[in-house]
Amino acid sequence: MTKDTPLPAEGFSFRLLGTVGQARAGTFQTPHGPVHTPAFMPVGTQGTVKTLTPDEVEALGASMILANTYHLFLRPGHELVGDLGGLHQFMRWNGPILTDSGGFQVFSLARINKIQDEGVTFQSHIDGSSHFFTPEGVVEIQRALSADVIMAFDQGPPGGADRRTVEEANRRTLLWLERCRDRFLSLEDEISTPAQTLFPVLQGNVFDDLRLQQARDVLRLGDWAGLAIGGLSVGEAKEDMWRTLEVMDSALPSGTPRYLMGVGYPDDLLRAVARGCDLFDCVAPTRNARHGTAWSEAEGQVNLRHARFKRDTHPVDPACDCYTCQRFDRAYLRHLAVANEWLGHRLLTIHNLRFLVSLAERARARIIDGSFASWSRDWLTRYEGARSPSA
Amino acid sequence: MTKDTPLPAEGFSFRLLGTVGQARAGTFQTPHGPVHTPAFMPVGTQGTVKTLTPDEVEALGASMILANTYHLFLRPGHELVGDLGGLHQFMRWNGPILTDSGGFQVFSLARINKIQDEGVTFQSHIDGSSHFFTPEGVVEIQRALSADVIMAFDQGPPGGADRRTVEEANRRTLLWLERCRDRFLSLEDEISTPAQTLFPVLQGNVFDDLRLQQARDVLRLGDWAGLAIGGLSVGEAKEDMWRTLEVMDSALPSGTPRYLMGVGYPDDLLRAVARGCDLFDCVAPTRNARHGTAWSEAEGQVNLRHARFKRDTHPVDPACDCYTCQRFDRAYLRHLAVANEWLGHRLLTIHNLRFLVSLAERARARIIDGSFASWSRDWLTRYEGARSPSA
Repeated sequence: MTKDTPLPAEGFSFRLLGTVGQARAGTFQTPHGPVHTPAFMPVGTQGTVKTLTPDEVEALGASMILANTYHLFLRPGHELVGDLGGLHQFMRWNGPILTDSGGFQVFSLARINKIQDEGVTFQSHIDGSSHFFTPEGVVEIQRALSADVIMAFDQGPPGGADRRTVEEANRRTLLWLERCRDRFLSLEDEISTPAQTLFPVLQGNVFDDLRLQQARDVLRLGDWAGLAIGGLSVGEAKEDMWRTLEVMDSALPSGTPRYLMGVGYPDDLLRAVARGCDLFDCVAPTRNARHGTAWSEAEGQVNLRHARFKRDTHPVDPACDCYTCQRFDRAYLRHLAVANEWLGHRLLTIHNLRFLVSLAERARARIIDGSFASWSRDWLTRYEGARSPSA
Repeated sequence: MTKDTPLPAEGFSFRLLGTVGQARAGTFQTPHGPVHTPAFMPVGTQGTVKTLTPDEVEALGASMILANTYHLFLRPGHELVGDLGGLHQFMRWNGPILTDSGGFQVFSLARINKIQDEGVTFQSHIDGSSHFFTPEGVVEIQRALSADVIMAFDQGPPGGADRRTVEEANRRTLLWLERCRDRFLSLEDEISTPAQTLFPVLQGNVFDDLRLQQARDVLRLGDWAGLAIGGLSVGEAKEDMWRTLEVMDSALPSGTPRYLMGVGYPDDLLRAVARGCDLFDCVAPTRNARHGTAWSEAEGQVNLRHARFKRDTHPVDPACDCYTCQRFDRAYLRHLAVANEWLGHRLLTIHNLRFLVSLAERARARIIDGSFASWSRDWLTRYEGARSPSA
């Protein structure tokens, strides 16, 4: 395999529609439809965006969702999902799907027994059963799941890792990427499934030179349809994240979509868009919803369990067009959150997801019409200025 | 107050449209719309039918729902709900609502300190705080909640209670009913809220003569818009329940709707309809859903966690018109149930509730067209005959 071999399977393309500074608006085309970037991808860990039906996720304006290879491998099993027609059919989601490589969960959820160049031996967090993930195996699992975008197996050191650890992780990530790519290409010959593409994950933590080196190495290995930036939002200082994104922006081709993994919160998402990122995912909107936390443009992040919402008959965010804000008030949502009622988790999940999806939609419109810089500055000032200590 | 004082507030009426044997089809009119009987009422314990939005409950065909006085009194508090415009406004449910008296929860969930004729002292299951429920207080709470139908405070002995215990409970229930009625009428003069009506609860366990005596005593106390049959489905033998319902049918006026509390499962509901009951409630459809259990006309009750559903691409019940059965297959629902995903609880809640609502709808149509007896016999034969030991 040489660099000339086109890794992007047919059906994938990226078109830039406008830029403001580093911020980009584009369209990422997949076999299951377009993703208008910047875009936030809701996380559907176990083949379901927690508490929501696929119809509700679609109604939020989400186009692409993410599912977790580690979880689906353990339960119900990728072979079962494959036999039943793939993840789209299994969960009744007709839009694009991205599956992660399972690496993040293996390193964070499972009990690790051994990490070697060959692969990772780990024990399931569900039943303690032992499993072995290799770069090749992870690609095979994701082929069976039939996601549009599949991710290469990588190793991302935690925030604060020393240079030596990061260098070693970069070396292994690159080695694994090559094996993922080769297995991906050989599977393309073997089986006929809907078109998929493979995204590499760029590691390097917050070491500028290691980031640049990793970018060069990864770009040498293929003509990728998209690039993922990993190893951020893992505990490093915010300024380090922004600087790293700026370094990456200078090193990555402008014609390729960039997926910033694990981001984020509304303000982080806007700041990352300003630094050239196109795709985002994060469990914050769904997880926060289960803790009663919601976002409001004029009030920042609020916890609806707070007593001050007891008799508040306003919607969570008067500026929001989601079902929750159109239909229910804070007093009722507070009651549901305090009583730990599932409907409360659902309604705040709807709101938080719509908040991020809509924020990305508006950023896109502002990039296209050229007003992104002042609009995002004003938005951040209002959102962050509103944060009260009592919230 | 004499028997001539019309207890049914304006806006309540019951019209019988047809009978087959003891089975009745009718329309119970309330200020928030009609309830076509027989009807199953979904339970919305804490002001929410667990996992569902009010729009989804409406889409199921449910007309009247039930909410729990005990839970709403403790959290968020009836005064708060009252100040915010009552339960309809609070939870955004525009159809009729029935609130229970809180008696059942006080006796089953809370730690009872003392039961006297004056009232019941108990400790909250949430925070251990001490409270005192009196018949008058329970009516006041339900007035604040603004339910259409409010229930009298009663004491129902458990299944298997001895005659002496049941006699004593009947005496106290009657005493409390009189006080509930008097407080209800005095409140009607004091405050102006949407029209409500008070249903008494008929106790007497499975002692035929105590049931008959209690019915006579209760009917002497008012011209009730509806009557609740309590103290059944609490552990007694099924034959005792059926016989008791037949005894009640002979003792109760035909022009008044009869609400059989806590029933039920699909087969029990049909058998109770055949014995003259009109309204039903039960947590089984919602609670079973959370345990992965669903009903199917041709297969009876099935637990979707069973391995035999792993690759089953049929809907839960091919004869069912609910959202879940129209959209998802058993393999996916099994995965959600096994993974304990909230969407699974939701989807089975939708199915189970629709199953009961639809069963009551069809019973009604069969009573009106005269074919109820043979239809329900065939339905029960199929449903119960299908039960396999592996389910």
